[in-house]
Amino acid sequence: MADSKAVLQANAAFYAAFAAADMDMMTAIWAHDMPLAVTHPGTLPVTGRETVLQSWREILAPASAVDIVCVDPQVQLHGDVALVLCQERINGHVLAASNTYRRTDEGWCLVMHQAGAVAATMVAPARSSVVH
Amino acid sequence: MADSKAVLQANAAFYAAFAAADMDMMTAIWAHDMPLAVTHPGTLPVTGRETVLQSWREILAPASAVDIVCVDPQVQLHGDVALVLCQERINGHVLAASNTYRRTDEGWCLVMHQAGAVAATMVAPARSSVVH
Repeated sequence: MADSKAVLQANAAFYAAFAAADMDMMTAIWAHDMPLAVTHPGTLPVTGRETVLQSWREILAPASAVDIVCVDPQVQLHGDVALVLCQERINGHVLAASNTYRRTDEGWCLVMHQAGAVAATMVAPARSSVVH
Repeated sequence: MADSKAVLQANAAFYAAFAAADMDMMTAIWAHDMPLAVTHPGTLPVTGRETVLQSWREILAPASAVDIVCVDPQVQLHGDVALVLCQERINGHVLAASNTYRRTDEGWCLVMHQAGAVAATMVAPARSSVVH
């Protein structure tokens, strides 16, 4: 499979876990034995697998599902690291996200996620179809 | 030089260019012949060298200097790619930033930058010294 297609599949799995509020799926998508980081909207970065996963537990545990879709993902390949730039549409708000994946024996796994609010005046109609 | 030290130097050069509103320095820190992306606060991602550099021209051109410092940079190494997670303190506001660098023949060059606002309630005193 081409790298970019495999990365998009990993990215789709991330948003599927997010939308399903499925902590087991979310845990599986994050890399093992590598440095990890996440910056949720409005917060400072947190690093390290346990801290990163705890941040997701706090987001996902209260929910049975999350109204989130990933729109217009763009893959940028840097050898064994891949970036996905995308929009997140969550509960009617638009966020801009950067997701960084690393090639591992288990496939492309997430090592960094940052999402931040997009001003309403900056939001154009989505250019491509919804991924999730 | 250890990779992490070299990455921190590249990151310091990025914020020096930003603070000096020096477009030549800013242009030099971004990689050539690689996919580039930037997500400025409140905006959607933009990709491609020309578009990324144009976004910086629009930010830096009106300024003779920018009141910005990078605080608490943390380096995460992924082979030939390095992430720096940090705070930006700009004009009295705190942003959370992710900067992605790639090892090139010219040293570590920037390939992705995202910065987003941090809620006032999330901001703690800086844990380490100011870099710039």
